[in-house]
Amino acid sequence: MAQSSNLNLNSDTIAAISTSYGASGIAIIRMSGSQSLNIAQKILNRIDHENPGKLILTSLHDENKNILDKVLTVYFASPKSYTGEDMIEIHTHGGILIARICLELLIKFGARIAEPGEFTKRAFLNGHIDLSQAEGVLGIIQSKSIEAVKASARNLTGELTREINNIHEEILNLQGNIELELDFPEGEKLNFNLGAGLENIKSKLQNIYNRCSAGNLLNSGVKIVIAGKPNAGKSSLMNALLNKKRAIVTDIPGTTRDLIEENFNLNGIPVNLIDTAGIRESNNIIENAGIELAHEALRNCDLCLWVIDSTQDFKQDEINLIENISSDLKIIFVLNKSDLKRDANININININLNMHKKISVSAMTGDGINDLKNLMSEIITGSAVLNSGLNASELQILKIKSCLNLILQAEDAFKSEIGFDVIAGLLNSVRNNLLEILGIERDDELLNSIFSRFCVGK
Amino acid sequence: MAQSSNLNLNSDTIAAISTSYGASGIAIIRMSGSQSLNIAQKILNRIDHENPGKLILTSLHDENKNILDKVLTVYFASPKSYTGEDMIEIHTHGGILIARICLELLIKFGARIAEPGEFTKRAFLNGHIDLSQAEGVLGIIQSKSIEAVKASARNLTGELTREINNIHEEILNLQGNIELELDFPEGEKLNFNLGAGLENIKSKLQNIYNRCSAGNLLNSGVKIVIAGKPNAGKSSLMNALLNKKRAIVTDIPGTTRDLIEENFNLNGIPVNLIDTAGIRESNNIIENAGIELAHEALRNCDLCLWVIDSTQDFKQDEINLIENISSDLKIIFVLNKSDLKRDANININININLNMHKKISVSAMTGDGINDLKNLMSEIITGSAVLNSGLNASELQILKIKSCLNLILQAEDAFKSEIGFDVIAGLLNSVRNNLLEILGIERDDELLNSIFSRFCVGK
Repeated sequence: MAQSSNLNLNSDTIAAISTSYGASGIAIIRMSGSQSLNIAQKILNRIDHENPGKLILTSLHDENKNILDKVLTVYFASPKSYTGEDMIEIHTHGGILIARICLELLIKFGARIAEPGEFTKRAFLNGHIDLSQAEGVLGIIQSKSIEAVKASARNLTGELTREINNIHEEILNLQGNIELELDFPEGEKLNFNLGAGLENIKSKLQNIYNRCSAGNLLNSGVKIVIAGKPNAGKSSLMNALLNKKRAIVTDIPGTTRDLIEENFNLNGIPVNLIDTAGIRESNNIIENAGIELAHEALRNCDLCLWVIDSTQDFKQDEINLIENISSDLKIIFVLNKSDLKRDANININININLNMHKKISVSAMTGDGINDLKNLMSEIITGSAVLNSGLNASELQILKIKSCLNLILQAEDAFKSEIGFDVIAGLLNSVRNNLLEILGIERDDELLNSIFSRFCVGK
Repeated sequence: MAQSSNLNLNSDTIAAISTSYGASGIAIIRMSGSQSLNIAQKILNRIDHENPGKLILTSLHDENKNILDKVLTVYFASPKSYTGEDMIEIHTHGGILIARICLELLIKFGARIAEPGEFTKRAFLNGHIDLSQAEGVLGIIQSKSIEAVKASARNLTGELTREINNIHEEILNLQGNIELELDFPEGEKLNFNLGAGLENIKSKLQNIYNRCSAGNLLNSGVKIVIAGKPNAGKSSLMNALLNKKRAIVTDIPGTTRDLIEENFNLNGIPVNLIDTAGIRESNNIIENAGIELAHEALRNCDLCLWVIDSTQDFKQDEINLIENISSDLKIIFVLNKSDLKRDANININININLNMHKKISVSAMTGDGINDLKNLMSEIITGSAVLNSGLNASELQILKIKSCLNLILQAEDAFKSEIGFDVIAGLLNSVRNNLLEILGIERDDELLNSIFSRFCVGK
């Protein structure tokens, strides 16, 4: 598929510091655009423009020929560069000031400071990468776990692109067959199974959706809140999950007041774990403030660990508390203190959608059951997402895949109710359009902005 | 002069992240040592070892061949590299994690994490740069002003090296002549003026000393304390010098309590300006704490601006206060409030070394005289230092130049008192030895450590 060409390519030459800000060994100042070579020649003693890609040692000087640094420089000739344009990299010593001075000189001689993500945006606009690869670039820079890095790397090497192109082609084939069918006299049938074709596309879309959801999970992580009545052992559970003394633990109910947050890695998924104040009726102003924070945290999390003291009777007031929690929230009931009373076997008969919830016995004190709990947490979070083959996609890209799935479901309905091939063909056109937008082949400005606005300067 | 070769060269291969830590466009992981190529081949799909210096696009993968990033890589073949050894650079996307993962893989396959400055130390040990150039590298990374960058760049391009080599050669010539003189029969004289030769060397050493002092000043900056009695207008002067409302100003004596610090650039010299509480006898605990801080600041500064309210009579108690300040401290007496009473012409007759001090009238309120004060400050700070041709040297290197100067003075004394040529030759040997130590040609471990320990990792 060819890149659409009616895009507003910038003709000016852009420059930015592409390494992080701080004293270090090396800093890279990058420039892209037709004037790169001209501008660089004003401040570098030598550029080897006959050997693109070759790093050479030269001197950086100001407009009065004062030498400022010995630098390495490399020229990349269009179209064989990251952006597809003529590019120059200058590798200065990694001082905060020298990199800035170098950039200022480039600006003085005609370059413009690049916007965040503008180099990658130009690479996209010049057809060097598609949006799924751009998302991969962003993912690698922002990844917080090795699994997330791998998911992004799959995008970079074009895995998502290939998957989507593949589906796009299958839809085209299907549409070709529909055309043939429409051309045929009424009543006659070709040897062609539209139902199976739709089913095949649906299952491939579902697979991509699961893999992108996994990638998203790996990159964005989840928020898990530990809640329950006072003295159920919430802070002990926090410490047991983190395997360190993070929260203060005492026998006194109401020890925890503020939210206690800590990040940890749950089988590759970045988790933001939050311990909260025990929830009960109270007249204490500080305690009530803590309880309000706990409720707030529960309203904004992906999973709740509701800790129950299994040595105590499970009473109606606790059932009431749990029923007050949003009915959409997934809950694991953690029956704590299993070391004190074996298998309390509490019958949790609560008026919420029970198939969303799980129950597990642990002892936060001895560590018994904690690993099982972690596995259960990761199972619930992951759901159908395929973590070890995750792909990287933005929220908007995932929404578009979801739209594709819905359109295919509509097509299946149309097929079953024999509404007519032209309606199905129209729905398939919409699916294809969504797919092309995900790759950026069809332009969707909102999607473009949602990706490039998240980049840092210099990339 | 050849590099001495009996240095303990490390045979292991070192690696480090050479760019600053943080999400950015590009991160560079650097490796140096004989195993660089072998190790890099374990994690890169392709290395163009036939084209040293050429950046090529390849994939970074882990030990299980999972692709982690698309990277640029370049191989530098010994001896044509920064360190003089085989080197590999890997340019990953600038994520915090991906750079660390890449480094960890290099370590896993046999590299060792580099110590701070170890790449530059190897460049030195392999004779690629001398210590004055190493100091230049460090200077560029740490420079806080453009003048300081230029001073360091002079080192990098070998200006200090050439100056020192030049003096070293002149001493050798002088010593050659002395040898000839000693070989001649007693009483006979050659056509050779030792006095003029010594004078010439002294003046060249003095010039280097001044230029290195300037470089040091440009890099390290100076601490200037504003002090005086309450309500003399110290905070107003602070604000006038900074040209912004930094310190709170009221008519109430004792408004300033804590030290107020701000950095500014005085004709290229980085200045740390400190406003202090007015000094007087007081019973107020907070005020006395402030006064103690003021005294402490005065004990640790390079220049004092003593602010005097020129509308008031200059009394004995203020003279006592000033006489209590360290007699080594340079002071500018700032006669403030010139707008209220023209030229108070206060006769500052104080029992301290007056030729160190200057007097100037200003109005912090109207800005009158502030520029003259700035010029006076810069004149006093700079002294004989030649700012616009500054060179970069460490404190220890400057001390060694000072030693050289002292040795030449001794040689001159010896010459005048006709003590004998062999004594002078011995003194000149010491001078030459010091010069070689400054460049690192003669090994001085203390000097070596004082330079490389100040480097960051990855350089």
